[in-house]
Amino acid sequence: MTLIYDKVAVIGMGLIGASISLATRRGGLAGSVIGSDRSPDVAATVARLQLVDHFEADAALAVHDADLVIMAVPVGAVGAVAGQVLPHMKPGAVLTDTGSTKTSVVRDVAPHLRDDIFWVPSHPLAGTEHSGPGAGFEALFDGRYWIILPLASDEAVVTRFETYITGLGSVCERMSPEYHDKVLALTSHLPHLIAYTIVGTAVDLETQLKNDVIRFSASGFRDFTRIAASDPVMWRDVFLNNDGAVLEMLQRFSEDLSYLQRAIRWQEGDKLEALFTRTREIRRSIIDAGQN
Amino acid sequence: MTLIYDKVAVIGMGLIGASISLATRRGGLAGSVIGSDRSPDVAATVARLQLVDHFEADAALAVHDADLVIMAVPVGAVGAVAGQVLPHMKPGAVLTDTGSTKTSVVRDVAPHLRDDIFWVPSHPLAGTEHSGPGAGFEALFDGRYWIILPLASDEAVVTRFETYITGLGSVCERMSPEYHDKVLALTSHLPHLIAYTIVGTAVDLETQLKNDVIRFSASGFRDFTRIAASDPVMWRDVFLNNDGAVLEMLQRFSEDLSYLQRAIRWQEGDKLEALFTRTREIRRSIIDAGQN
Repeated sequence: MTLIYDKVAVIGMGLIGASISLATRRGGLAGSVIGSDRSPDVAATVARLQLVDHFEADAALAVHDADLVIMAVPVGAVGAVAGQVLPHMKPGAVLTDTGSTKTSVVRDVAPHLRDDIFWVPSHPLAGTEHSGPGAGFEALFDGRYWIILPLASDEAVVTRFETYITGLGSVCERMSPEYHDKVLALTSHLPHLIAYTIVGTAVDLETQLKNDVIRFSASGFRDFTRIAASDPVMWRDVFLNNDGAVLEMLQRFSEDLSYLQRAIRWQEGDKLEALFTRTREIRRSIIDAGQN
Repeated sequence: MTLIYDKVAVIGMGLIGASISLATRRGGLAGSVIGSDRSPDVAATVARLQLVDHFEADAALAVHDADLVIMAVPVGAVGAVAGQVLPHMKPGAVLTDTGSTKTSVVRDVAPHLRDDIFWVPSHPLAGTEHSGPGAGFEALFDGRYWIILPLASDEAVVTRFETYITGLGSVCERMSPEYHDKVLALTSHLPHLIAYTIVGTAVDLETQLKNDVIRFSASGFRDFTRIAASDPVMWRDVFLNNDGAVLEMLQRFSEDLSYLQRAIRWQEGDKLEALFTRTREIRRSIIDAGQN
């Protein structure tokens, strides 16, 4: 139990915000956690499950004496929340977010920044297909990467923040916003887009076939439906805000898919087998990297 | 423990063949299981792990007094194996296969059929990303669907065969070859093709980015790599033999993906959110159907 910050304010009490509060408490990382959310339903769940030490519906009031402010809201809302909380933060405090896209967040927060606030964007590579405060749990971040974007912040401030993140259970890794968005476009955003698409294709089938697709969903499709059950608003914002990198990766993917489509049409089994053999190697690399 | 067949011969001792032998033994469903495989490596593993009662490298010899012959080989090889074993089967015996495509299997086996052999194609909706006899386990089929294609076979023969399949742990479901291939194209074949494609797209990235994609593989991509680690020869044969249904579903998928691509490019968040909300329903249906 190591106290890192006296007061931590979490704005947005969804799956991520709730889990941050619970993991902070587990690690004894803060004197108290103040939660904030504009939704009365979320507020009621937070109260019922006792997810925070204090709840304050008004974000401006929630942050006024916090040493660390975490914006855990969909990336499309980060700019507005920053505009709301930054004028009320105390000098020397640290501001971060948990958004899945980083160039857009850096762009949207920039107009609201103050010289006496340390802005350290971040992104936990953790989550489930469930959403809302009731889905939060204290072990969500254990062993998962948490990407830190130090920007031009003071090194001592960043190091302290990383100590807090490590205390939540995560492994810290520094990146630039642009590189982060490129890596995530392929590892997370494109797979989600494809899963949403194929499940959507099934939704549009005639009733009998659709029912049987659901009934006999084999491992491939079943995995996709889990991914495609993720929070709609969060993911809408991801695609709107990492559009450049996603569209670039999608272009590559479409070309590669056309290549396989053509190989199937022309019965070129050697091309299929060659690719299917190469992709096995990637799985081995992931298992070797301990990310399985 | 209910004896259904005196002798069962399994041709092809990969993941499926080995699991069939183990599940048959667990259920006491056969007097003995004869295994056959043309690969000396597979033969050695089968012997070492004692996966069958008898092993016979020559498929023609393996089947000669079997009451049930199961061809558990890649779908591209089913026709050749049928041509090899059918002349040596005893009158009144049952022949089946476990292939993932059914119109092609029916087409390929047809020229070799005999009037005194009951041909009942089938397909267990079970498997893992691992392959080979060492990956087999007796519980593989527990609770999973096993599709039966009765064709014009005698009802008593089909019912007895279904009793055996139920004894392996599976739930039987009858279908026509064409309908089977359509359902599987979307639930299994297209998801595998897409997973192979996106992992292949990652393989072609420049080294640094590729390494970081592997290192920071989030849940979406990691699920895809598991699927894309499946047996290359088996899946090559699936796509070559269910080309019609796969290409048709792929066409629908590509249209739907283009729609989302355009929505991202033109920042049409409402279209994205509307689809992402609808796909959640499918996941609920699958959970309700107990296939989760």
